[in-house]
Amino acid sequence: MESLLNQSRKLCPFLKKTSPSTLRALSTSSSVNGVGGGTMSNLQIVARRCPVMSKALAVQSVRNSAFSPSLGLRPSGLARAGGLPVGQRRSYVVPSKPTNIQASIPKAADAANVESLHIQAGVFDTSKGICPHGAAALRAARVAEGMAPRATARVTRPVNVVPAAHHSGKFDYEAFYGAELEKKHKDKSYRYFNNINRLAKQFPQAHLETPDKLVTAWCSNDYLGMGRNPEVIKTMHETLDMYGAGAGGTRNISGHNQHAIALEASIAKLHAKPAALVFSSCYVANDATLATLGSKLPNCVILSDSLNHASMIQGIRHSGAKKIVFKHNDLVDLEAKLASLPSHVPKIIAFESVYSMCGSVGPIEEICDLAERYGAITFLDEVHAVGMYGPHGAGVAEHLDFGAHRAGKPKGTIMDRIDIITGTLGKAYGCVGGYIAGSAKMVDAVRSLAPGFIFTTSLPPATMAGARAAIEYQANYDGDRILQQLHTRAVKDSLEARDIPVIPNPSHIVPILVGDAEIARAASDSLLEDHGIHVQAINYPTVPVGQERLRITPTPGHTQNYRDHLIGALESVWSTLGIKRTSDWRAEGGLCGVGIDGMKPQNIWSDEQLGISGGGAITSTANMKTGGNIAIGDILKGKVGRLVSTVA
Amino acid sequence: MESLLNQSRKLCPFLKKTSPSTLRALSTSSSVNGVGGGTMSNLQIVARRCPVMSKALAVQSVRNSAFSPSLGLRPSGLARAGGLPVGQRRSYVVPSKPTNIQASIPKAADAANVESLHIQAGVFDTSKGICPHGAAALRAARVAEGMAPRATARVTRPVNVVPAAHHSGKFDYEAFYGAELEKKHKDKSYRYFNNINRLAKQFPQAHLETPDKLVTAWCSNDYLGMGRNPEVIKTMHETLDMYGAGAGGTRNISGHNQHAIALEASIAKLHAKPAALVFSSCYVANDATLATLGSKLPNCVILSDSLNHASMIQGIRHSGAKKIVFKHNDLVDLEAKLASLPSHVPKIIAFESVYSMCGSVGPIEEICDLAERYGAITFLDEVHAVGMYGPHGAGVAEHLDFGAHRAGKPKGTIMDRIDIITGTLGKAYGCVGGYIAGSAKMVDAVRSLAPGFIFTTSLPPATMAGARAAIEYQANYDGDRILQQLHTRAVKDSLEARDIPVIPNPSHIVPILVGDAEIARAASDSLLEDHGIHVQAINYPTVPVGQERLRITPTPGHTQNYRDHLIGALESVWSTLGIKRTSDWRAEGGLCGVGIDGMKPQNIWSDEQLGISGGGAITSTANMKTGGNIAIGDILKGKVGRLVSTVA
Repeated sequence: MESLLNQSRKLCPFLKKTSPSTLRALSTSSSVNGVGGGTMSNLQIVARRCPVMSKALAVQSVRNSAFSPSLGLRPSGLARAGGLPVGQRRSYVVPSKPTNIQASIPKAADAANVESLHIQAGVFDTSKGICPHGAAALRAARVAEGMAPRATARVTRPVNVVPAAHHSGKFDYEAFYGAELEKKHKDKSYRYFNNINRLAKQFPQAHLETPDKLVTAWCSNDYLGMGRNPEVIKTMHETLDMYGAGAGGTRNISGHNQHAIALEASIAKLHAKPAALVFSSCYVANDATLATLGSKLPNCVILSDSLNHASMIQGIRHSGAKKIVFKHNDLVDLEAKLASLPSHVPKIIAFESVYSMCGSVGPIEEICDLAERYGAITFLDEVHAVGMYGPHGAGVAEHLDFGAHRAGKPKGTIMDRIDIITGTLGKAYGCVGGYIAGSAKMVDAVRSLAPGFIFTTSLPPATMAGARAAIEYQANYDGDRILQQLHTRAVKDSLEARDIPVIPNPSHIVPILVGDAEIARAASDSLLEDHGIHVQAINYPTVPVGQERLRITPTPGHTQNYRDHLIGALESVWSTLGIKRTSDWRAEGGLCGVGIDGMKPQNIWSDEQLGISGGGAITSTANMKTGGNIAIGDILKGKVGRLVSTVA
Repeated sequence: MESLLNQSRKLCPFLKKTSPSTLRALSTSSSVNGVGGGTMSNLQIVARRCPVMSKALAVQSVRNSAFSPSLGLRPSGLARAGGLPVGQRRSYVVPSKPTNIQASIPKAADAANVESLHIQAGVFDTSKGICPHGAAALRAARVAEGMAPRATARVTRPVNVVPAAHHSGKFDYEAFYGAELEKKHKDKSYRYFNNINRLAKQFPQAHLETPDKLVTAWCSNDYLGMGRNPEVIKTMHETLDMYGAGAGGTRNISGHNQHAIALEASIAKLHAKPAALVFSSCYVANDATLATLGSKLPNCVILSDSLNHASMIQGIRHSGAKKIVFKHNDLVDLEAKLASLPSHVPKIIAFESVYSMCGSVGPIEEICDLAERYGAITFLDEVHAVGMYGPHGAGVAEHLDFGAHRAGKPKGTIMDRIDIITGTLGKAYGCVGGYIAGSAKMVDAVRSLAPGFIFTTSLPPATMAGARAAIEYQANYDGDRILQQLHTRAVKDSLEARDIPVIPNPSHIVPILVGDAEIARAASDSLLEDHGIHVQAINYPTVPVGQERLRITPTPGHTQNYRDHLIGALESVWSTLGIKRTSDWRAEGGLCGVGIDGMKPQNIWSDEQLGISGGGAITSTANMKTGGNIAIGDILKGKVGRLVSTVA
């Protein structure tokens, strides 16, 4: 049985070679401890970063009261730990009863290897002895403080000040939770959820806690109203009756069925990829896929856009892979970072097509170029774009080769070049769930290795069938997304005309800059209470402090009457609360593109693709069920909106 | 701008103080590299474990071809890195263009602090210079190999042999995925999913790829058939019509509604806790909650049962907290480990009530005792027990105080003492989703801090409403779970009578030991193809190698006709494939409790609780809708099963 000491002696040249005088020297300076505000020696700081020592220190040096006799440091180990030859040291430091303490550093998110997650590293037993590295650190710290080394050490300076110490000497968990919540209240990031019940038959209306309190939902991600699409609903009813409420198991154990197979086939076809895999959510899809690939690909480096979604950030963290953050949409920065890495090292460039909180759009083609040049693969999150862009609703990557995809020729297109596309079934497709699409082997590897896929119950048959119906519907009909774009343009134009600051972007997101957490919340509250409009305030940490905003998401159902109501309400709230206008931001030099000239980007959907003729009429869109040559004025007044409401 | 070097010089006493001769000494021996099978110096091994150096080495030393000039090591840094004073060293090692490489070690799963996830640690730019630690390591390795140090270093021994090097010099991702899959095929852990479509109106039957190929589902986790319960289905239909297919947003942004509120209230009431929180799945609930609490609680130590589910193992890993694994259900081992930790350090004991693959049951009360004694909190996963045990279906913790809970007096019970209970809506409750229940502050803290909760679309209204209907139904009716227990007993008894080896346990799980991956798979295939019975083989890594099994889950719908069919089929398969019988295992000394006398544990549901009188009749169960005094023979023949089928 190998103890930690034997192990660490092999591992740590510091432990093996460094003299006591060096340890003392390291102890001379102290620095502020970020966690608890206390101080500690540099050696303690060093030790806390050591994968071996950190465990010992965490357990031992936090004691802010006297060590109990059974936990005391063994006197013989204290004075000599630093410099004695190995043979002599072994006699008193080898633990008699090792406790198994494990590092939780995710070296590998090895789905398949659950057992290996429990591999135990032998570690000292504090009741019997102490790692000499730890003892040396504590002793050196005491020497540095001008205190005599003690036979029975009392650690007077805890590594972390425990924020909630119960009178019993035990940790006070409730006080700790309370303190964490208090922090959220103080920095205004505490979230209050609004009770919003979106009504399928009165879309885009919702009721609050009771059915009589009607409001208009203006911030849902059910971008196309597919959550109430009759074909989706009908499919779900039928599947529910036929196959029940739940899948009843993981994909491996009775939760794999024709609905999963058909849904994954539809997704693969949508993105023109050989294979696809469905997860509980796209949060899970991103997390599980990046964690698995990042941990499995040897020495993988993940290059991550600085505005990437939390799910990708977590997946990268969980992978344990090296992560390099590149500036948002900055190709020069990305290339510099790619160029700094050896060619043959596996690299994943993780980015999004539409960034949800600002509506900006990733330079997909250029990133593909860089990926090819530097031997990276591309991981593109199309969560906010699937259903919304492209002739079949496959997203921005498809949209960039509109004609080729409409002609059914995906080969060589930008979407074809993307290695991994992830998307959601819970936004434009109106249901819930997420997915990845890519090569057959990549998908099979993730299917075979990702714990977040393997060890969880499948989505219900009705959900999978409904999501598939939504994908197929949108693949064959572009009227909803065209109308959504027209409504978005109209909202943006109206706000611009009133000097209300829309953060400029080429997508369907309408972010209105507020710039203050409390005002953003007050604006949201006033819209709900005074105007019957639900628009959630987006505050830190979802956006940086100072960039707080309202995020508006028009849908095909938000016709002119709703729009007029919204614009009037915003005008009123902006005046009442004295919120900065575009001209105010301009006077200050601008922020987030607001008040800065020349920031208005070209829309993803061109006038031509939207079928807007010069005379303001929809001319032709291949799949437009509502027919061609509709006056743009009618659309914006909601006449086509109502038409679509009948259809959808 | 602080570079890595300045940082690491402060951090690493090795870098600061160790002489070149020490570095050389460290380079003399080499060992097998576990990843690629290559060799490397001890110094390289050391460096790979260093949180700072590992990043540099991973990027730099894997190059198995010549460094390009732009990536070359700067000559001036090579020879002197080990020993020069800081002032002199700074002149050539401070990078001119630091690249931001980040550690992905999840120190804190800080949901709220998305921005902080992107905190950038300055790291050297390989195009401009090299960390002297890395240079020293490489140089020392070369010295050890008897090679002259070179101005332009060529690393001839990669840290990891890259398993898939493309002819272009770029990494061959497809070859890598293929190799990973090949490993799974070779160790027989590659999974083939069966296409199982469980039929709501013909429960427990399912069809395969076409509706005419009927089989009986014998391994679903829809333990009570709630997936086809008329009240659940009706609620879901109504909610779907009224509120649509999806929630349309995260809980914060339009995805919070009356269904979420009501569901969480029902869950809190079920477990007699102040609060509850619903997640996409219990995988996500376990992962997110343990990751959040483990990372937030200062110096938290998580004590984890060795058989814990993958979701908990991942959550603990993701927390970055210290983890101590205790032997499965071993109170002596757990106490020894608790006793080794200081009293005031926060500790979480994470365990399950029913362990799904062996059916064993955690010693909940005793673990509560230990938690109180040592100042720990308890995290109890009741995933396989909710709906199945207790007078209201709250799980094993509730079951242990059957009378008190039936009397509506939860105060002071074992369930009351558990700090965090997690459960699923996807097994006995027949839907999908997971949850935690506990104190208001704990739940609010997780709600406020866990990325896996915050940044994902809510479950659909119909799913939440359906799950709530299932919980309420089971809270008011215990007939399904009683019948399930009776059917389980009957299956176990029949198998025992035929010398077919059931792994003994006190719960509703019927694991049949096979002990070989290929035979288990062949048995499963034969059951499906020759007998129309679906029972998935459970192989490594879900269970250890050599303990492969079939896992059977009877439901209230598995009446005598189904049972007779199953037993006959198993008898046939066991004979045909020559699978070991209980007596064979006994002759070998037993395994997993099979063939070992005195291993049969007392069932969780007592005869009295099941209402089985001495004469073999159900006497009384408070909520039994089918009425009292039903002959046990009738139940087991399926008469009551049919009755319940009518009811449910």
